[in-house]
Amino acid sequence: MSSAWLLPEHIADVLPAEARRIEELRRQWLDLARAYGFEMVMPPLLEHLESLLSGTGRALDLRTFKLVDQLSGRTLGLRADTTPQVARIDAHLLNREGVTRLCYCGPVLHTRPAGLHATREPLQLGVELFGHAGLEADLEIIELALDGLQAAKLSGLMLDLGDARVVRSVLAGVTLDTMALTELVAALTAKDGSTVRQIARDCPAATRDGLAALLDLYGGDEVLAEARKRLPARAPINAALDDLAWLSGHIRQAYPDVRVGFDLSDMSGYAYYSGTRFAVYGHGSPNVLVRGGRYDEVGAVFGRNRPAVGCSLDLKNLASVAGSVPPHAAVRAPWGEDPGLRAAVRALRTQGETVVCMLPGHADQTEEFNCDRALCEVDGQWVLRAL
Amino acid sequence: MSSAWLLPEHIADVLPAEARRIEELRRQWLDLARAYGFEMVMPPLLEHLESLLSGTGRALDLRTFKLVDQLSGRTLGLRADTTPQVARIDAHLLNREGVTRLCYCGPVLHTRPAGLHATREPLQLGVELFGHAGLEADLEIIELALDGLQAAKLSGLMLDLGDARVVRSVLAGVTLDTMALTELVAALTAKDGSTVRQIARDCPAATRDGLAALLDLYGGDEVLAEARKRLPARAPINAALDDLAWLSGHIRQAYPDVRVGFDLSDMSGYAYYSGTRFAVYGHGSPNVLVRGGRYDEVGAVFGRNRPAVGCSLDLKNLASVAGSVPPHAAVRAPWGEDPGLRAAVRALRTQGETVVCMLPGHADQTEEFNCDRALCEVDGQWVLRAL
Repeated sequence: MSSAWLLPEHIADVLPAEARRIEELRRQWLDLARAYGFEMVMPPLLEHLESLLSGTGRALDLRTFKLVDQLSGRTLGLRADTTPQVARIDAHLLNREGVTRLCYCGPVLHTRPAGLHATREPLQLGVELFGHAGLEADLEIIELALDGLQAAKLSGLMLDLGDARVVRSVLAGVTLDTMALTELVAALTAKDGSTVRQIARDCPAATRDGLAALLDLYGGDEVLAEARKRLPARAPINAALDDLAWLSGHIRQAYPDVRVGFDLSDMSGYAYYSGTRFAVYGHGSPNVLVRGGRYDEVGAVFGRNRPAVGCSLDLKNLASVAGSVPPHAAVRAPWGEDPGLRAAVRALRTQGETVVCMLPGHADQTEEFNCDRALCEVDGQWVLRAL
Repeated sequence: MSSAWLLPEHIADVLPAEARRIEELRRQWLDLARAYGFEMVMPPLLEHLESLLSGTGRALDLRTFKLVDQLSGRTLGLRADTTPQVARIDAHLLNREGVTRLCYCGPVLHTRPAGLHATREPLQLGVELFGHAGLEADLEIIELALDGLQAAKLSGLMLDLGDARVVRSVLAGVTLDTMALTELVAALTAKDGSTVRQIARDCPAATRDGLAALLDLYGGDEVLAEARKRLPARAPINAALDDLAWLSGHIRQAYPDVRVGFDLSDMSGYAYYSGTRFAVYGHGSPNVLVRGGRYDEVGAVFGRNRPAVGCSLDLKNLASVAGSVPPHAAVRAPWGEDPGLRAAVRALRTQGETVVCMLPGHADQTEEFNCDRALCEVDGQWVLRAL
């Protein structure tokens, strides 16, 4: 056969063993979100481009597939990130006064993979909490993320905390074109000191000092004390450092097994973050498992500037790290028209058992299921026998 | 605000109450499929167009969104139907000798809606059984479909049986261009006798008689007897009628509440059906709830001509008919740093309860959840109190 059946690069089928794992994680996380009081929504895969990309930044634009709607002639985008859609739903459709907790799970598509081994079709699951500006909301989201990872039996969890206000405040008043600013932020995230110095060479001394300090400000608790000494004493920076201290204290108390670190120059992820931000890494996984943060400004483009904090993850990535689960135990049954047999099969299925009927001529073909019992006729009764 | 936030026509957000219903149905059906021994797969949303549309017919082509892959320059399609993808997985990736049962659930996208009120983004769930040419496979798929609809509490179910071999055999040897043939098949499905006569006016008399007979051949059991009298005595037609009699007999026995009917000229649905085909309607729903059938020839384009039978449904459509479910009962809890409170919240959530924490300043805001209990402190202990 020709290469016609090869899938596009960074696009893959998910086969049974992996699909089963993903489905289990999906249910676990959605049940967890519901236990926290998050209600599910399902935004569409397709939207008008200007709606989909409102206030989300250039990076998401480049990552978004575009196509033309035959019905209207307008340009549509395939969502590359669900968070802005959920903010739109909160602002426009629900329009509630108080706190709204929403969650979602569905595929997103990327024109280009996020990394060397990344899929262009992540299965994004996320939670978003709208309407509360206090840190209690940030804490709830981080706790939910850690609960979900612990339920998935991930060990060696490492929580990396940061705050978008720190870099923004250090760069406040700096006049750089968008391209240079984007490069600068990327270099800060990558701790690429020479590029940072090169781009910032004409900035005021205070800015250059702040940037130089930022490059060192990652690690353990000492980072916050160090930051208070070396960063300019501006209100947003002080507020960010206070918030990070409060959050890390609470997380350490509730999750003593999770290592907590800080990275004040990390701006990776989504451009819409406006306050505290976090990433969770696991033992043996180079990729971020869950990423989240506060994005109070996203709702503004939808006419309602609500405080918001949330996080999301790619279930495909999580499944690849979380390891496989043993195949589901099953019962093998013959095919037959005997009403007793059919009733026995039905009863077992109603009890939640998997019963695989051997269609005529295909005995013993149950490759994926672990058939550990068989339905057999003994003295006119259908009974289960261990295999 | 402008119309920018209006969604494209026939595209909609799914809000919490409906999303909850859809998610419940999704789990119910996937659990049912697993109970029958179907393994889950997740084909991608995007594929190379020629792979996606192989052997599926012109109608699916017109319904498929196309876009260009920046990485390869090739044309990609967004799947409009998952069945051919699952046939590809069976043929190429799993490549098993025996029977393979696969199921899937995910969105599909249509350039044009299938009907006046149809969504362009159905949530398609389906099951496919490969490798068995016998009717036992057809029966298993129909039984699974009826079990799923009954579990969803659908009443007044009506099973409509047909067979693609009947119309094909009546039209065998007829020379009509593709356009006329497509119109003829559509007119037969719609029982539009004048169009059928018009298109077939130059066909041989035997064909015209067969077509005229087909227009009458829908209804109850009398249809099969009538067909044996009025349709040409060709082998595929006789085989189809025997198969329909066998299937309807078995279904009537196992599902006495389901009305069974026949429509021998109905060719709606997918062009790839090659044998028995069925549609299930419910009380008060004009739309088909589940559609399925045998499509032994789809695998051929993937280099492996396996017998195959399957069915699929749109969970969004099913949810709209199946009616709403009451909101999930929940517990209201205050926010606080008291370790006893936090432990009590955690314990309730672990037990599967939804516990909504009232963030500071937002007391009593739990619009969607039905909070019937509250977590209260009594003599230093956190206890549940009915509300």
